[in-house]
Amino acid sequence: MTDLKNDRFLRALARQPVDQTPIWIMRQAGRYLPEYKNTRARAGNFMTLCQTPELACEVTLQPLERYPLDAAILFSDILTIPDAMGLGLYFVEGEGPRFQKRIETIRDIQNLPIPDPEGELVYVVNAVRTIRRELSGRVPLIGFSGSPWTLATYMIEGQSSRDFASAKALLFDQPKALHQLLEKITAAVTEYLNAQIQAGAQAIMIFDTWGGVLSPANYAEFSLRYMHKIVDNLIQENEGRPVPNILFTKNGGQWLESMAETGCSALGLDWTTDIKKARERVGDKVALQGNLDPCTLYASHETIRKEAHKVLKSFGNGPGHIFNLGHGIHQHIDPEKVATLVDAVHSYQHT
Amino acid sequence: MTDLKNDRFLRALARQPVDQTPIWIMRQAGRYLPEYKNTRARAGNFMTLCQTPELACEVTLQPLERYPLDAAILFSDILTIPDAMGLGLYFVEGEGPRFQKRIETIRDIQNLPIPDPEGELVYVVNAVRTIRRELSGRVPLIGFSGSPWTLATYMIEGQSSRDFASAKALLFDQPKALHQLLEKITAAVTEYLNAQIQAGAQAIMIFDTWGGVLSPANYAEFSLRYMHKIVDNLIQENEGRPVPNILFTKNGGQWLESMAETGCSALGLDWTTDIKKARERVGDKVALQGNLDPCTLYASHETIRKEAHKVLKSFGNGPGHIFNLGHGIHQHIDPEKVATLVDAVHSYQHT
Repeated sequence: MTDLKNDRFLRALARQPVDQTPIWIMRQAGRYLPEYKNTRARAGNFMTLCQTPELACEVTLQPLERYPLDAAILFSDILTIPDAMGLGLYFVEGEGPRFQKRIETIRDIQNLPIPDPEGELVYVVNAVRTIRRELSGRVPLIGFSGSPWTLATYMIEGQSSRDFASAKALLFDQPKALHQLLEKITAAVTEYLNAQIQAGAQAIMIFDTWGGVLSPANYAEFSLRYMHKIVDNLIQENEGRPVPNILFTKNGGQWLESMAETGCSALGLDWTTDIKKARERVGDKVALQGNLDPCTLYASHETIRKEAHKVLKSFGNGPGHIFNLGHGIHQHIDPEKVATLVDAVHSYQHT
Repeated sequence: MTDLKNDRFLRALARQPVDQTPIWIMRQAGRYLPEYKNTRARAGNFMTLCQTPELACEVTLQPLERYPLDAAILFSDILTIPDAMGLGLYFVEGEGPRFQKRIETIRDIQNLPIPDPEGELVYVVNAVRTIRRELSGRVPLIGFSGSPWTLATYMIEGQSSRDFASAKALLFDQPKALHQLLEKITAAVTEYLNAQIQAGAQAIMIFDTWGGVLSPANYAEFSLRYMHKIVDNLIQENEGRPVPNILFTKNGGQWLESMAETGCSALGLDWTTDIKKARERVGDKVALQGNLDPCTLYASHETIRKEAHKVLKSFGNGPGHIFNLGHGIHQHIDPEKVATLVDAVHSYQHT
């Protein structure tokens, strides 16, 4: 076990005091970086990049070479699990992910295997091991997964969707079948995340990208319930340290109280919630991660500083804030703008 | 002036008792109806359909022939105003609206004319007149407009957008320019809606489709503020009756209190807010319209009844509920499902 040289991120997740507010950025290893595009071009395609631990490690570390970020996040995709379940993930340039097969019948659900993290998904676990080694304790490494509901939408629709017609038809008309599917995905996600932890992931984030398209009752029953199950079954401690976890539901600002009740360590916030009010609502139950509008990075350097300071000021003094964007960084952002943001956060002093 | 045979919708908006909960459906005149597709095919294209009062009237009345709905809504498009400002609206099949010109400079904003409702937009006013005449007082007619912020996003982006990069870059870096644009659009929308009222619209709805992509502070400053101005300047009474107005911000569930403070008559709710909690939050300030997930209509007839009853039960007994979907009806819905929904709402008895 390597000593951790920068533990601000983990301290903030534990709601302990920090010298500077830690920052990392969703999709920090991504297309806005020319060096990422180079590595991806070398890999040939996105899935090869994910499936080759050395390349996944290389792109994971790239943003850390440029910016003094306080955490690294495993480079991978939320759809590795459905792919390992046999649905055949592929990408159409400019159109997003697609599956060769999709879930159409109850038999399809019953036939789904729960993938072995050390089998079909070993490339992810190996990437975690490689990244941990190469990080040499500079910053903690975050492992992640999509939420069961979010993964289910892709598995039922076979691709990205605007209205989730098929997933919701199943939800409304065959809720038991959907629960069966979600149970299976939950088991798979839990094993997958625990394997990431055992391989060296020091914190976990669950991305519920599509929980926000549900009604409050359906969110509780079909999305939050399964994230709660995962939180209950994650490895709590590894290498003598607690392994905190972060739940993020995009457009989930109305449900922060119930999310905080799962016992998770932190909530990710998109930018549609005032972080001050969020803090009042969840009290000292959880830390908060967020929540600058990613579009702020299209603005001038001066505006970026000002807007970042607004978020920091809104959270206020006190422990438990990890700075981040409210969603992944866009591909057309100038990398210099990110440098400005990181500096604006680190240099801010609460008065 | 024709007597109104069914005033449930207006009574509910005024928070007066009704014999049955009124229902209308966003996009009730639309592509899920075969008769709509026929008329549209006859028109040749969508804009001709909007711009020919007899055809706009025909499609407005079609859903009322099929279902005992409690309101009609003018058939038109939210982008008529930017089109009348000279931006050149056109539609690309399967890709949504586009503009020939877009707002790129402060000069573009300064040069924008405020269209005359009895000039460039007279086809809308004439459609309102024609529909009122043909309705013969069966149900009230709703006029509408897009919100200033929502219209501004299309005018700046030149089309639909996923991330609103250009509109938000203007917001963050040149807020004064954006305010200038919003002031102009607000003046145009106000004149446009007042002309609809004078032509016979008996209620007004403002669609803020994209207010929900803003942070709370930016929503207040760049979207709600201008809707508030419009509400303040709408004609309050016509034909001896109050003319109520409904504000609808998609994904605006976190901001209902501030929306209700504008003095509007009602709030439209999408399905991500529990209508019971919404009612508790806004008290007796406003009526509430909504809020069934439009995807419910993909489910079985039995499920549709059950889910509609959940919404009615959640609102509870008492005045001020107009039933609707939480967003526009999808094009692939079976029209028979809508019949079931309307019946489920009308036949429901609060216990």
